[in-house]
Order: sequence, then structure tokens, then C-alpha cells
Amino acid sequence: MFKLKGFKPDWTNDPPPKGTYRSIFKWGAPDRFKHPNNRLYAMLKREFEMTDADFKKPQNQGNEQVRLDRPPQLTNQHVEPLIRIVGPENVSSDDYSRTKYSSGKTMEEAMQLRRGIAGEVADIVVHPRDKEDVSKIVTYCNGHKIPVYVYGGGSSVNLGFKPVKRGITLVMNTHMNRVLSFNETNQTITVEPGIMGPAYESVLNNAPDFFNAKRRYTGGHFPQSFEYSSVGGWIVTLGSGQQSSYYGDMYDIVLSQEYVTPAGVFKTYDYPATATGPKLNDIMKGSEGAFGILVSATLKIFRYMPENQRRFAFIFPNWENTVNAAREISQGEFGIPSVFRISDPEETNVALKLYGIEGTVIDRLITLKGLKHGERCLYIGHTEGEKGFAKNVKKKVKRICRQHGAMYITGYPVKSWAKGRYSDPYMREDLNDFGIMIDTLESGVTWDNLHRLHEGVRTYIKSRPNTICMSHASHFYPQGTNLYFIFMARMNDMNEYKGFQQGIIDQIQKHGGSLSHHHGVGKMIAPWMEEHLGTVQMDVLRALKDHLDPNNIMNPGGTLGLDTNDREK
Amino acid sequence: MFKLKGFKPDWTNDPPPKGTYRSIFKWGAPDRFKHPNNRLYAMLKREFEMTDADFKKPQNQGNEQVRLDRPPQLTNQHVEPLIRIVGPENVSSDDYSRTKYSSGKTMEEAMQLRRGIAGEVADIVVHPRDKEDVSKIVTYCNGHKIPVYVYGGGSSVNLGFKPVKRGITLVMNTHMNRVLSFNETNQTITVEPGIMGPAYESVLNNAPDFFNAKRRYTGGHFPQSFEYSSVGGWIVTLGSGQQSSYYGDMYDIVLSQEYVTPAGVFKTYDYPATATGPKLNDIMKGSEGAFGILVSATLKIFRYMPENQRRFAFIFPNWENTVNAAREISQGEFGIPSVFRISDPEETNVALKLYGIEGTVIDRLITLKGLKHGERCLYIGHTEGEKGFAKNVKKKVKRICRQHGAMYITGYPVKSWAKGRYSDPYMREDLNDFGIMIDTLESGVTWDNLHRLHEGVRTYIKSRPNTICMSHASHFYPQGTNLYFIFMARMNDMNEYKGFQQGIIDQIQKHGGSLSHHHGVGKMIAPWMEEHLGTVQMDVLRALKDHLDPNNIMNPGGTLGLDTNDREK
Repeated sequence: MFKLKGFKPDWTNDPPPKGTYRSIFKWGAPDRFKHPNNRLYAMLKREFEMTDADFKKPQNQGNEQVRLDRPPQLTNQHVEPLIRIVGPENVSSDDYSRTKYSSGKTMEEAMQLRRGIAGEVADIVVHPRDKEDVSKIVTYCNGHKIPVYVYGGGSSVNLGFKPVKRGITLVMNTHMNRVLSFNETNQTITVEPGIMGPAYESVLNNAPDFFNAKRRYTGGHFPQSFEYSSVGGWIVTLGSGQQSSYYGDMYDIVLSQEYVTPAGVFKTYDYPATATGPKLNDIMKGSEGAFGILVSATLKIFRYMPENQRRFAFIFPNWENTVNAAREISQGEFGIPSVFRISDPEETNVALKLYGIEGTVIDRLITLKGLKHGERCLYIGHTEGEKGFAKNVKKKVKRICRQHGAMYITGYPVKSWAKGRYSDPYMREDLNDFGIMIDTLESGVTWDNLHRLHEGVRTYIKSRPNTICMSHASHFYPQGTNLYFIFMARMNDMNEYKGFQQGIIDQIQKHGGSLSHHHGVGKMIAPWMEEHLGTVQMDVLRALKDHLDPNNIMNPGGTLGLDTNDREK
Repeated sequence: MFKLKGFKPDWTNDPPPKGTYRSIFKWGAPDRFKHPNNRLYAMLKREFEMTDADFKKPQNQGNEQVRLDRPPQLTNQHVEPLIRIVGPENVSSDDYSRTKYSSGKTMEEAMQLRRGIAGEVADIVVHPRDKEDVSKIVTYCNGHKIPVYVYGGGSSVNLGFKPVKRGITLVMNTHMNRVLSFNETNQTITVEPGIMGPAYESVLNNAPDFFNAKRRYTGGHFPQSFEYSSVGGWIVTLGSGQQSSYYGDMYDIVLSQEYVTPAGVFKTYDYPATATGPKLNDIMKGSEGAFGILVSATLKIFRYMPENQRRFAFIFPNWENTVNAAREISQGEFGIPSVFRISDPEETNVALKLYGIEGTVIDRLITLKGLKHGERCLYIGHTEGEKGFAKNVKKKVKRICRQHGAMYITGYPVKSWAKGRYSDPYMREDLNDFGIMIDTLESGVTWDNLHRLHEGVRTYIKSRPNTICMSHASHFYPQGTNLYFIFMARMNDMNEYKGFQQGIIDQIQKHGGSLSHHHGVGKMIAPWMEEHLGTVQMDVLRALKDHLDPNNIMNPGGTLGLDTNDREK
């Protein structure tokens, strides 16, 4: 491998210029970056047969100013009534806004935007101020059959809010980001959907200051997109946080919801349980904007007790033992750790580099113990909850891991993981700058099908030469878990990428995984839905769609596969 | 109070004669009985101003043979095709079968049957043998618009399967009571809906014998009707067991379902989680036969570890402290006990009699401690789960109860409660025999509304002279609990009873309780649904109904309030 003396890749350290495509597709804060460390860089070169020379000149950086080749189709006849509803300061139709609020975080969109391709964009962008605005907008748009899309935090990885039928996009995090009420007795909080992760968590952590509460609380929901995703987005896409094994998925956390739909406005009850027929709260979870617009939600909150967390990490001799131990822990009825991540051998290799274990004393001990590279697997996690409960969970976890041949390697790797938990996505820009594609797909799976799904998808990905496939499971239930596939390759051709991605989804489907564990469906995975659920079940979802949104104005154009049976895969 | 020397009430100890009305409305096994003990009997006389003389001659015992005044409306033209599907041995149209399989366990039905009134009955009774039979029956009935009702265990307390539009009733527990598969890896079992509680629990407890499993399991679902209710009934009515605070409600326990509907047959996936839009599994839970017929279900199972249970009981100085402690336990994040029951002062009084505490050393200690009759409240329960977990739960429960002024009174009352947990309903026959009505209504409630609901409903019930109102909460969640009202009065007039019952439902609605926590809605509470959920939400349920059952043949006539907006309250 060709190595330049003293060479460092030209990772970008400058915030993207304003108004550029890069400022749209770049993850997170404009001035934050995370670059691959030396060990990771060396691995990339080795895996992709690249040399330092390949990292000298970044490509397709998207530093051009956004320019659209199409003016809004929506005429002033329609724009003016919308301006009357929300005020002129809350409507924009400039090229940049239209592009920014129409773009999510898929690899596909990043590739396009890097090449100055905006894809489908909204005609105008509207920032509603409150539920009444939303209500008037939906009434108007329903009356005039104008498509309505909703932008929460913008972190969708499946074209969830892509305005493929144009129309308008509502931005929820501009104004509709307030706490509406806090109820310490019930341990609930009611918020508008546009409140972002950090703001939401911060008011809960500081509940004594904000609400004169007796205790501090946590929302318990920490997806990797935490810093740049909204509570509303978490709900309508059925998100899961990295601590979901203890706190539950957003599916479990959201207690009640209020929606504006073309068929009317409703608020579900926040009873902890009720036997009054099928629950609208359930029907709306995961509806991805296709049934109506979420305007407020009441969520369960939890006591904030980080002082009780007990960290741990283990190296297992192989994947099978790791999975068996994880299952035993999930079914043991002593409580489940909150962070709970098992990595397959290929991911373990990368993780040991990323978390700074490689080359340390721990690394030498692992090797001494005979835990072989290419077979060994990492398990990291920490407990949550009341002190005695948390201590007991760690005790049982240790016992079970040892019974499965694992070596305890302290809590250090979890600390290291926690430090990078929200910043890893920043690396995508560096990789993409040098023609390396990185993307993820994930699936829900029962225990008895885990190995088949893992092997099936891996075999497909690895059949492509010089392609990395890292897998982990990070959300645990007594009945199963998820599998999260991260794949990387030197790939610049958009068609090649699309074909490869679709092939992976095919394999997930073929090997009995769910089409998504917590990314949602959006318009990207929608074409697989009919086969996945079957026509009888899809027809039920379509009946709901027809009732709630008879004019198909709510996130139209394929969402969940509801309004396109024939969309090309 | 007039007292006859050596008098014992003439409680019935004979199984009801075959073919009688009594054999239909009597709870449980024909030869099992539970009579009020002496202390309870004394209390009844005192509360209802009755004397021994009032208990000399039982009335309206329903010992007459069932005779219907109306032949089946369904002509042979329709009966013959049904016979061809299931075989002649699985179709009956005699008066007794038609009445038996059309009657649930409401007080209203008991009062009617005691007077020889059968109410609405099915034209014919069909015992399907399997899913294929059900499928053919639904196709036939849908084609000919013949109403189809489903009888599971027959324990409905809200006219859930009352065939108010006649047609046919399918009895699920005759043949469709099999275990279809057992999956120890996933900790799930798949069964037909007609399997009854004890059979279901027994195969799980004895899984090593039945399935060559490594461990014993439990279903974790123990409603008071356990012995005479079916798994399918638990699911479609959103039932909760007496250990739900730990195991979850049936809502949580059922992982996937298979339905035959007029719009098609489908089976939902058993992924532990999936982000593929709104879930049909959720939509069908609680559908009470109005959307289709459940033909199989996959349920979560749990490790059977009764040896780890830790029992406890406490007496609190008052209801407020009891509720506060219960809330603290439910929100404490150390796990929730499985049996978890708090009784208000009036129920505590009865419970101390029923569980044999009154008059014992414990009773004297309670009084010595200054815990006053009429104010003091009982809390009983036991923990579940892994040993260290269960021990920690009990430790925390004790600490919290003491902080709230409670006195620990050993685990004895729980043992005593457990002995009678399934037999208390047998007492209804004794009470009814002497003109004493006993009935229950229950509601889901958030913590912050518990006292308002409790007081509101109690005030109404107690405004009627000589009426007992006992309340408890027995299903706990961090966000709230349920309130279960047991009311008793000397009452023989059916109209008076109906008016009184409806008044209570009105009060539940008025004071912000849910219309049902775990009894379901059926046709009894249906008239309150429109106001409860609001028209927009009801319209969504009706849209589902219209899609899945366009000819309204599935449990028609008011179920969930879907097909009668104007049914008289």
C-alpha cells in the first residue's frame, strides 16, 4: 500500500459556505466534525485498496450555491391564503429553503446534493406557529388538493418527508417546539412535535427549575440522531433510542397524541390502559405523516438517575455465544440493561479501533486470553433504574456473560462509545469526500431467525469485493432484537449504489427480517411493503388512509406504500 | 336485627338440574360453590337491614327447563350449507344450546334468566373445527349477510357476544382449543383462540413434558375469570390479569394474531418490534369480534418461577397514603409487584372478613396501632421474576409503605386472597338467590384523577341507601392505575337495576375515567362510546369496520358502538 510520508488526508474542517448544497447534506452543526482516527484510516486504505494519494483531493463536495431549475408550481392564488394564515415571515419560496426542507439524510440524497441535484422539492415552505395554523392549513390544502409534507428535524434516512408531489412543506421545529404541560403526578409531559431532542431532554433533566418539580426526569429516548431529530419525528416513524432496551421504543413511550387530519381533529386519551376498543393512539404511531399532522403528544417520562448506571463491557469468543448470552439476559426477568449493544466480529474489529481499545493493555489481555480477531465479539452496555435494581442487573449480566465464555473488559469501552454516540455520523462527510459510500439498513428479528438473517444479508454484502459489512444488535426484547447493518465501499456511481441498496433490502425481506426496526419506511422502503405485509393488511392501512385523507394530500407519493402500488423498486 | 337461633341461610349446594336456566347463569363448575362466611353474612344483614327470615327461602332460582318462544329464523336453505362445512355433529339448534351460547355473565342476564327470559339468542350454534371451517363460514355468511357471533369462554360481563341480530354463534372452545406451536427460543406459544385459561397455563407450566422444553413457563395472565375464559376472549376484549402489573395486560402479551375477516385472512408478524407503519396486531386487539374472527394468536410467555415470589400485606392509615405509596412503587423503577391490590376503607372492611383477618391477632395489632376502621386501607401483593430482582422489589415496597405510615401484616392475607381468587364469583348465586344484587364496573384512570373518579362514583353509589360500594385498584402503571367498583344492594327490580348501573357508567364518564379498564365495551357500554372518544375517533373505528366487514355481519348490533349511533342508553 502506497504511503506518503507524514501524510494526513485532507479532511474538511471548515463549515460549509452558507447557501451551499453541502450546508444541507452535512450532518449536524456546521462547525462540528469527526474525522476517522489513524487506525480507522489505515483500515479504510487496506479494505478498499486505496492509498494516501486517493485522499489528497476531496471530490463532489457540494460547495456550490443551491440553484433550482424550477419555480414553484403553486400559484399566488394559493400562496396568499397560506400567507394570510401564518404571516409572510413564516412562508418562504427561495431555492435554498425549498431544497433544505425537502432533503433528509439518505445516502442517495447526499450523493445527489453533492452533484448539485436537489431532487424533488416543495413549492413553498411554511412555518406554522401553532395547532390552529396547522388546522387552517390542512383545511385549505384539503379543499384545494395541495400536498402537505412535514419537516421535523430533517434526519430521515428513507425519504420520509421527500415532497415527491411538490406542494408545501411544514417546518415544525421553528415555532411548534414548546412544552405544553408537565405532570409530575402522572410522570408525563405534553409537547409540541417540533421540540428537538436536546431541548426536550434538558427541560426534563432540569424539571425542578422549569416546573418546580420535586425530581429530575429523563425522556429515555436517545437515538443516534438525538441532537437533530424532533419528538414528533420519533413518534410518527416509530423510532427507538439507544437505551430502548430499558426505556422502551417511542412506540411504548408515547401515551397520547393529538392530530389534525383532513377528516378532523382529535386527541387520544392518556389513560395508562383502557379496554375501549382499538386505540387511535396506536393507529397513528408510525403513520409517517400519511394520515394527518401530529400537533401535540403526551409522553411517559422517567426518573433521571444517572448516578445509578453501572457500566460493563465483555469480549466473547464468538458471535453465537454473544447472541446466546444476549438472549439469556433479555429473557432473565431481572430487568434489561438500557444501553445493550452486541457487535459481530467485523464490527468488533472496527469498534476496538474506534473506542481506542486497540493497542492498549486490554487489547493484549484479550489476545492472551485466546479471543481471536475475526471471531471475537464485543458487548457493551450499562444499566439504569433504581440503585438496587441496577446493581442486580449488572450482577446477573456478568454471571451470564461468564457462563458464555466472555471476558470482562471494564466499563471503559462504554464511556468511549458514549463520547462518540452522537458524533459518528459526522464521519460520513469525510468518507464521501473521498468517494467512500457508507450507509445503514436495519431490521427487527425474532431470536430464532437472527443468524439466518445476519448470514443472509452479510453474504450478499460481502459478495461485493472490498466491501465492509459491520452488524450489531442494539435493541433487546425477550422475543428478539434488531440487526443493524453498516456497509461501506468505494462507490461513486449512483445507480450502482441504488442497485446495491435495493439488493440488501431484498435480502432482508427474503431472510424474514422486518423491513425496518426503527428507521421507518418512508418512500424508500415503501415498494417492499405490499409483499411484506400482504395485500389484505395493506388494504386495511389504505382504508385508514382513504378515510383520514380522502384527497391524498398528506405526505403523498408512496409513503408506507399506501398510494403507489406500482412504484418502481 | 332479627336473628334465628342456630339459623343458617339456605345457600344452594346442589348442582343446577341439567337443561335449566340456572345451569346457564351459574358461575363456573356446576358442583362448585362458595358461600358467604359468618362475618360476611352478618354484615349483609346489617347493611341491607335484612334478617335471618329473609334468607329462608331462595327466590327466582331459574330451576326451570329452558324453553324458547321463537324458532330459528335461519331457514334450512342456510343451515344445510353450514352443516356441510362443519358436519351435522357440530351444529345445534335446540333451545338450550341457543340460550347457553348466547348468554354471558352480566347481572342483567342473570336477572333475566332467573325469570325464564332468554333475551336475544342465536338461531343456530356452530362448533368450527379449525381455521378452514371459520374461513368457509365467514365467506358463506358474508355472501348471505348472516350475522356471526363468537363464544369463547362465555364470561363476558358486557353483552360482548350477545347475538342481538340473531344469526349464528361460533363456539371456539369445543375444537379450536389447541396449541399450534411452541417456541422456546423466542419464548412464545401459538394457540387457537378457544383454549381455556387452565389448559393454557398447564401446558406452559409443564412445557418440559409437553414440548421437551428446558424450562417451565407461565402465561402471566390470571383474570378472575381465568378458569372459565379463553385466550381468544382475553385478546379481543383487551383483558388484564390479576398479575398484570408485572406481566402486562393482554394488550402487551399478545405478539401476533391471525384473523379471518370478510375482507380477507391475514396473520401479523411476530417481530418484537418493527417500524413498518401502524400495526394490524394493534388494530385488532380489542376489536371484540366486530372486525373479524381470531383463529390463532402468538403470545409472549414468561419463566415460571413461583419459588421467587415474595408476599406482603400492609395496612395504611388512610386511602390517600395508600394511593401515594402505590404511585411511588409504580414509578420507582425497581420493578412492579405482580399481584398489587389496594382497597379503599369500605372494601378493606370486607376484605378483612373475607380473608379471615378479622378477629385474629393481626386484627388486634392493627387496632392497637390506631389504624381505624372506616379509614384504614389494605394493600396486598407479591413480587415475581428472578430471585434477586424479586427480593429487591419487596425490600423497596416495604420501605415505601413504611414511609407512608403503613403497618406490615405478613404475607398471610395474600395467601388467603389467592385461595379465593377464582372462587369469589360463586357467591353471586347465593346473594342473588335472596334478592341481593352484586355487580362491578371498572375504569382506567391517571394518578392525578384517581381521587376525583373514586369520590364521584362512590358518592353516586352511596347516595342510594343501604348500598355497599367497595373499590380497589389492582393494575398498576407508572402513569396511573384502574379503579374497580363492586356495588351491592337489595334490589330485585330489573329496571331499577338498569337505571342504577347506567347512572354509575354516567358518573365514570363524567369524572374522567375510561369506560373500561379491562372488561371491554361490548354492547352494554357501547352507547357511551361516541361521547367518550368523540365522533372523529369513532369515525376512524367505523371506517375500519366498513372496510373489514362491509356487510356488518361480524358481531353486529352495537359492539363498541360501531353500528348503532342511536342505541338507547
